[in-house]
Amino acid sequence: MSTEPQFIELMRALATGPAARGLNDDAAALNVGAETLVLTHDMMVEGVHWLPGQDPADVAWKLVAVNLSDLAAKGAEPLGVLLGYSLGDNDVRFAAGLGEVLAAFEVPLLGGDTVGGGPGRAHGLTAIGRATHVPVPDRSGARPGDSIWLTGTVGGAMLGFDAVRSGLDDPTSRAAFCRPRPLLAEGRALAPLVTAIMDVSDGLLLDASRIAQASGVNLDIERDAVPLAPGVAGSGRAYEALRWGDDYQLLFTLPASVAPPIPATRIGTVGSAGQFPVTLDGAPPDPDLPLGYLHG
Amino acid sequence: MSTEPQFIELMRALATGPAARGLNDDAAALNVGAETLVLTHDMMVEGVHWLPGQDPADVAWKLVAVNLSDLAAKGAEPLGVLLGYSLGDNDVRFAAGLGEVLAAFEVPLLGGDTVGGGPGRAHGLTAIGRATHVPVPDRSGARPGDSIWLTGTVGGAMLGFDAVRSGLDDPTSRAAFCRPRPLLAEGRALAPLVTAIMDVSDGLLLDASRIAQASGVNLDIERDAVPLAPGVAGSGRAYEALRWGDDYQLLFTLPASVAPPIPATRIGTVGSAGQFPVTLDGAPPDPDLPLGYLHG
Repeated sequence: MSTEPQFIELMRALATGPAARGLNDDAAALNVGAETLVLTHDMMVEGVHWLPGQDPADVAWKLVAVNLSDLAAKGAEPLGVLLGYSLGDNDVRFAAGLGEVLAAFEVPLLGGDTVGGGPGRAHGLTAIGRATHVPVPDRSGARPGDSIWLTGTVGGAMLGFDAVRSGLDDPTSRAAFCRPRPLLAEGRALAPLVTAIMDVSDGLLLDASRIAQASGVNLDIERDAVPLAPGVAGSGRAYEALRWGDDYQLLFTLPASVAPPIPATRIGTVGSAGQFPVTLDGAPPDPDLPLGYLHG
Repeated sequence: MSTEPQFIELMRALATGPAARGLNDDAAALNVGAETLVLTHDMMVEGVHWLPGQDPADVAWKLVAVNLSDLAAKGAEPLGVLLGYSLGDNDVRFAAGLGEVLAAFEVPLLGGDTVGGGPGRAHGLTAIGRATHVPVPDRSGARPGDSIWLTGTVGGAMLGFDAVRSGLDDPTSRAAFCRPRPLLAEGRALAPLVTAIMDVSDGLLLDASRIAQASGVNLDIERDAVPLAPGVAGSGRAYEALRWGDDYQLLFTLPASVAPPIPATRIGTVGSAGQFPVTLDGAPPDPDLPLGYLHG
């Protein structure tokens, strides 16, 4: 919408002070006494973030998982969540999925609110965590010469979305889109080592460009080094997989001499800032395609 | 909706553990290291919690104020808020009101999310505070013989709602509904003394019945002792004012020997549990009318 950039600018201007950082796409760090908290809030909207007819249990899972993924990218240990829920047709299935995801990641539901909702319902979730490493890692520390790393693969959620949309009975594909797993242990292991880190929610190229811009550098990605989910290679969709989000892998940079303490793939090198924040094998990405999913 | 009680029951069953309390109508306390945090999340829905055509700046103010009021009732000092915002027609006015309320109560915006929203937009807000007194006061400690106290008056928001709905140019009345003020200093002063406390958001009688049920007692309110906002007395709406919420006053109980450290009015006495959680001059409230605003 036309007003969005202005609104976000206004909100950014309000989100000031040493303890306050991040709006819309990053978790905030907050010092309380001797503790450092990490806080994040994400929303999901019917018809935008989930498909009509999708199992509400999967919606609940994803709502919690994407917020926990934001904590993972800060190396934070989850303390709990608060839920804002718009009541609808199948609340019992939502509650069932909520129970599953909270149990899977051992996170308590601390509170929340329920309201009557019409079509286009919106749910919100706040996740609170405790930083396990300070300073809390962020996107701004990548330096020329660092290597770029990625956990897991990209493209799995893209295939899963197709499976859900077309009603395919392919549980593995569907799970990649419907039941992402926040990489909490991996984030905690990485926090003391990384120069920059984020979770890939909106697409590898777009999120890489965010690290590049926050750090004032270029991220050059070796196209053939990026690990693709099974079924993506040879499908003609490899480039699309670089622009698809929802896989919730961790993208991070390390000094060249440091090896990651968890399984990950080296996918490129940080360079000095140039004309383009992110390049592929030294060349700019296709100018006719967006780098990833842009929130509307 | 028919599924709501079941959903809330499921959510309550999930909201377990010593650190987790409260869903839908109470703030949660969470111990983190040596600190005790207080957390709350409330939503507002277009057409339900605000009127079509109402100034978005007022919606922003109220969204923040009602959540801060939940912190006030816990004696907590606000640390910040996270906002879930559904974009719409007049986001700049919303951002302006958000700036005003955050400045008025010196609370930072820590983060949040914006999403595209259709009609029936829903906004959510999470407020985080630090407890200034432990144990954090709650609703469950009222004992027979305690006196019942109320800050301020009731009925002001009721008249303000009418002013807004009918387009009256009456800034004082409108402000009572549109710009409630969380009683943060009062809550901090009361926290070490009260046996039970909550903010009156859904109506004096309904919220009194919640203290009564949480504490296992009766709250007997002296009808003529309840202070009414100017314009309510003599209007024939005094009883309605006892059932109208949105004034965000603090309702609390104290041992009979303790005087409140802030301006407040003694409005009744706690008794042993009887047939009715709340009574008026010893008699049950009108059985044909709800005790207050019940969330749908």
